Amino acid sequence: MRTIAAKQAPPRPVVEDVRPRVDDGRYDAKATVGDAVEVLADAFVDGHDQLRVDVLYRPESERAWQQVRMQPQVNDRWRASFCPDQVGRYVFQVRARVDAFGSWLRDLRARAAAGQDITGELEVGARLAEDAATRASAEHKKRLVELTARVRTGDIPGPGDADFDELGALVVRYSAAAAASSATYGVWVDRVRARFSTWYELFPRSTATADGGHGTFLDVVDRLDYVRRLGVDVLYLPPIHPIGTTKRKGRNGAVVAEPGDVGSPWAIGAAEGGHTAIHPDLGTLDEFTKLVGAARDGGIEVALDIAFQCSPDHPWVREHPDWFKHRPDGTIRYAENPPKKYEDIYPLDFDSPDWQHLWEALHDVVEFWIGQGISIFRVDNPHTKAFPFWEWLIPTVHETHPEVLFLAEAFTRPKVMKRLAKLGFTQSYTYFSWRTAKWELEEYLTELTQTDVADYFRPNFWPNTPDILTEQLQRGDRRTFAMRALLAGTLAANYGIYGPVFELGERAPRHEGSEEYLDGEKYQLRHHDIDSAASLAPFLSTLNEIRHSQLALQYDRTLRFHHTDNDAVMAYSKTVPERCEPAEGLSAAPVLVIANLDDKYRQSAWVDLDLGAIGIADGASYDVNDLLTGARYTWSGPHNFVMLDPDVTPAHIFRIEASPGGTP
Amino acid sequence: MRTIAAKQAPPRPVVEDVRPRVDDGRYDAKATVGDAVEVLADAFVDGHDQLRVDVLYRPESERAWQQVRMQPQVNDRWRASFCPDQVGRYVFQVRARVDAFGSWLRDLRARAAAGQDITGELEVGARLAEDAATRASAEHKKRLVELTARVRTGDIPGPGDADFDELGALVVRYSAAAAASSATYGVWVDRVRARFSTWYELFPRSTATADGGHGTFLDVVDRLDYVRRLGVDVLYLPPIHPIGTTKRKGRNGAVVAEPGDVGSPWAIGAAEGGHTAIHPDLGTLDEFTKLVGAARDGGIEVALDIAFQCSPDHPWVREHPDWFKHRPDGTIRYAENPPKKYEDIYPLDFDSPDWQHLWEALHDVVEFWIGQGISIFRVDNPHTKAFPFWEWLIPTVHETHPEVLFLAEAFTRPKVMKRLAKLGFTQSYTYFSWRTAKWELEEYLTELTQTDVADYFRPNFWPNTPDILTEQLQRGDRRTFAMRALLAGTLAANYGIYGPVFELGERAPRHEGSEEYLDGEKYQLRHHDIDSAASLAPFLSTLNEIRHSQLALQYDRTLRFHHTDNDAVMAYSKTVPERCEPAEGLSAAPVLVIANLDDKYRQSAWVDLDLGAIGIADGASYDVNDLLTGARYTWSGPHNFVMLDPDVTPAHIFRIEASPGGTP
Repeated sequence: MRTIAAKQAPPRPVVEDVRPRVDDGRYDAKATVGDAVEVLADAFVDGHDQLRVDVLYRPESERAWQQVRMQPQVNDRWRASFCPDQVGRYVFQVRARVDAFGSWLRDLRARAAAGQDITGELEVGARLAEDAATRASAEHKKRLVELTARVRTGDIPGPGDADFDELGALVVRYSAAAAASSATYGVWVDRVRARFSTWYELFPRSTATADGGHGTFLDVVDRLDYVRRLGVDVLYLPPIHPIGTTKRKGRNGAVVAEPGDVGSPWAIGAAEGGHTAIHPDLGTLDEFTKLVGAARDGGIEVALDIAFQCSPDHPWVREHPDWFKHRPDGTIRYAENPPKKYEDIYPLDFDSPDWQHLWEALHDVVEFWIGQGISIFRVDNPHTKAFPFWEWLIPTVHETHPEVLFLAEAFTRPKVMKRLAKLGFTQSYTYFSWRTAKWELEEYLTELTQTDVADYFRPNFWPNTPDILTEQLQRGDRRTFAMRALLAGTLAANYGIYGPVFELGERAPRHEGSEEYLDGEKYQLRHHDIDSAASLAPFLSTLNEIRHSQLALQYDRTLRFHHTDNDAVMAYSKTVPERCEPAEGLSAAPVLVIANLDDKYRQSAWVDLDLGAIGIADGASYDVNDLLTGARYTWSGPHNFVMLDPDVTPAHIFRIEASPGGTP
Repeated sequence: MRTIAAKQAPPRPVVEDVRPRVDDGRYDAKATVGDAVEVLADAFVDGHDQLRVDVLYRPESERAWQQVRMQPQVNDRWRASFCPDQVGRYVFQVRARVDAFGSWLRDLRARAAAGQDITGELEVGARLAEDAATRASAEHKKRLVELTARVRTGDIPGPGDADFDELGALVVRYSAAAAASSATYGVWVDRVRARFSTWYELFPRSTATADGGHGTFLDVVDRLDYVRRLGVDVLYLPPIHPIGTTKRKGRNGAVVAEPGDVGSPWAIGAAEGGHTAIHPDLGTLDEFTKLVGAARDGGIEVALDIAFQCSPDHPWVREHPDWFKHRPDGTIRYAENPPKKYEDIYPLDFDSPDWQHLWEALHDVVEFWIGQGISIFRVDNPHTKAFPFWEWLIPTVHETHPEVLFLAEAFTRPKVMKRLAKLGFTQSYTYFSWRTAKWELEEYLTELTQTDVADYFRPNFWPNTPDILTEQLQRGDRRTFAMRALLAGTLAANYGIYGPVFELGERAPRHEGSEEYLDGEKYQLRHHDIDSAASLAPFLSTLNEIRHSQLALQYDRTLRFHHTDNDAVMAYSKTVPERCEPAEGLSAAPVLVIANLDDKYRQSAWVDLDLGAIGIADGASYDVNDLLTGARYTWSGPHNFVMLDPDVTPAHIFRIEASPGGTP
């Protein structure tokens, strides 16, 4: 015979499949301050008992749990949301308890309705309350005793009675029944810019007023007005450090540089210093912090590039040879993807015998720039560095600087990109640049916004980068660039462009089949006529103004696609999800975008709207107000005809408003 | 500055999303002896290094891990399988290590192919091997040194060279690089009957040769030949214990029994005893074990009913009043679902203050019947008993009797049914009885066989039970019964019928709208003319013979549906999955079933076969051999026409065979 030693029977309720939960709870989900965190869980118990299910949550730094009651949905799924009001890590768990009083009350009503004698059952309820009173605080004990008297009278109210609701809550609270709790899960809460940001990348050395000159931080200060007019809030600068001369690459990536070639900013480190030094031709640290401050005054954050690799001239090569891999002949290994060689770059060895000091030094680099006022970093090729390094670095930075954001520049296999997001990267580059057909855009966006991926991966869409001039852009024209910017900026709440080459429509590849820019700024100084009449800057300004005024466009999870009968016309909407506070001064209306994916020809389509997704009642008429053109139409029902001419506009961006008197 | 105290850098490889993994690994997946357990995992590492990924596995009772190498599939997914050769719990984990030698060799070949000087690189490989040798066993050290010499010669072979394969494996084995290991997951390995079984439920008291007599175990012994001819291998008996007289239910569930009414076998316990006693009218314990032995001699296992509840006359009511819930007036609570009352039944209180002794006593009941030769239990309403009880009981029984199977009779909400399967129930009743339309059968079966549910939930399909006479059967006729048996027996590897009422086509409900049988055996003795010419028994014998000879029908996970252009015609196939040993004497051919869901009218359809799912090459012709009728056709290509007349057959059950000379 088997004997049981335990004193207390395990709790009878079950809590399963809690969301958000990343990799079985190993990693944190992501949220932002002021946005409700939706928690879902399956909860049930044997038999017919009712349950009371709560979410317990708290900032990790506090000890006291806060609590919110979950509501049953269909199929034993429960839902609640809580509002994180500070940046940092939150933890939560789901707890289910048998609600003996609620079960009793439900049964009592059924018995009474069937005309059964309930005298004996009233005493059951009274004793539940009295039992709870033995464990209650003095104040609650008094209340329980008072309310028990009402139970014994047999005056049983219908649902919604305040006394009985209070009594039920108190009985559950002081119940002796064991509660079933889920594991504790984490949510990393970022500031709002993590969810909504408009990036602009420029090479400071190309901002000189005179053609041929080497731009400086002070030139960038002069460019800030332009950037601000574009509607940008994150100005991202490629590495600003001294550039190596050994094996320096020439223009268009030539293996041998010509005299005067400026080299790639990613070949970091020279006699003047490494990752905490500034390229002398750009200016001084003082001038850099002046730029950071001037940008901030205009509502723009400067983001720096973290490229953890060294030119052969980097001081670390001399000071810490152990941080690099060596060949048997004693030379340091340059970067390779055999048979390709990248001799101007030495990768760091994250498995180095002296890895502790290497990791500490890299952390010091980040802290140094945080000390200069930087709180956004774009991280170069994080997938070629050890995952455990990021898993250590990002939380370590966040311990003292939870406001810092990291954008992962990984264009690699899907699971590697997702892993980096799980490890803590705030935002991630994506495959958007190469997704051009309607079906692949819809499929990709659905994965990014409608699946568990959205719990931890925040896409940041870039139509171009210094390394990515897509075939579509090469073959396109001004209309193509407008369409791609519009898609990026309305499909994704975070997006960016690499300018001014983007708004100026630069699209010549280094050679046929290459995605590199001809005469790209990576390897040479350039001068741009930013005031060109052909510039897309006015269009980008309008687009970004719309993004800033329409709260719906500042979220990704509410994206929904709508059917159209033309593969060249894509329709999608966004709405404002549950927030903790109203949006001051912003429109919270649903936004409907109908985009023409054809950059050459006019296209028309019948659009078949899912009216429920945009908050319109069946049969109601509603106004659609085109924020790009100011045109306004009144529509009724789901089926509507659109015609889009790429010479006029790449899309409608409609704000949806219920018509006055528009209900059916 | 942050300092790192750790001595060893964390392992660089990542292992994620291991399958099978039930509820993040909290519960075991299910497998059967002799069937390969497929393990899948995502594994990758930063940069370009190659990985070596292994599954480590062992019976939980053994200490030494066995190991099988995983092969890369698409998208960083890896696969391997292992063969459990004994019943009981296995554990496994997935381990990934950087394959430095493999990465080196791949790069070396790329360098050599590009004509680069590889002299220095040869030394790199040699040193990898020499480093491994410092940690190797004497034998392997010798071999590493020998093979290192071959590396230094620069004679670099292409893939598949035995020496280099051996060298690579040894270098990985003795590598100093840290391995990344997943959590350890469990697999419960059952005997084969857990996966493939043919059940038959009968009421022993209805087996008397003379109408009106009370059948006995010896009458059931006489019935065994009939049962065996049906092709049954599990004979399930409703409770065989003394039946209470207090509040005994009468015929057709009447609240007051008439004198002579025999009561429900589920109202367990009377003066003669409780859950370990035998109803005196059925016979003695000796006669019961004689039945069990005689059945076993004929290849049939007797399954008993576990119904953990008591009649008011059960000895426990007197001996252990604490095991039941009481009203304030001291009376014991009978079963209720207010306002409904079930006064002949006292539920057990699994939260009783004396719960330990209650649970122990219930365990003793199971052990008692195991001691009488029973190794299959059908568990009555497990969802009305505490989940933690089952989570304790089943593993406790399995510790000493891993061969025991439990069938969960829970017809309740989906997540509750799934939970019971996770807790350890071997098989589960399902919603099959009520799924009649093609779309809902396809949807339900796809969930059961093609999703993670299949990792832990084994469906057992019943067209009828003593409590379930579906509307479809009530309105049907012999053809309906044949069709439903055929669907159950070919869609599910485990199925059963409640007879002889099923094969005799009994279908009168207690009243219109009721799913209870009129004059059902639950409440009265019945006498059946099992030799009736109208009986479906010959059809069931044929169906079960086909199930026993066709290995494909003994598995669920390989079920695939094929399109037909008629909603009344459903086509599906099964194949034999990866096994550890060949199937002796059985056909391992794919089986294709094309069923007419219309029990009244002839239906025809064009069937659009997924030829890949049944192992036929595009363009090949193949033979389809109807195992029900013996008809044989040669088909070619995916599109084939069928016509099915319910007066002739409910379906084709085709064995698929490549035609001689049938390749394109």
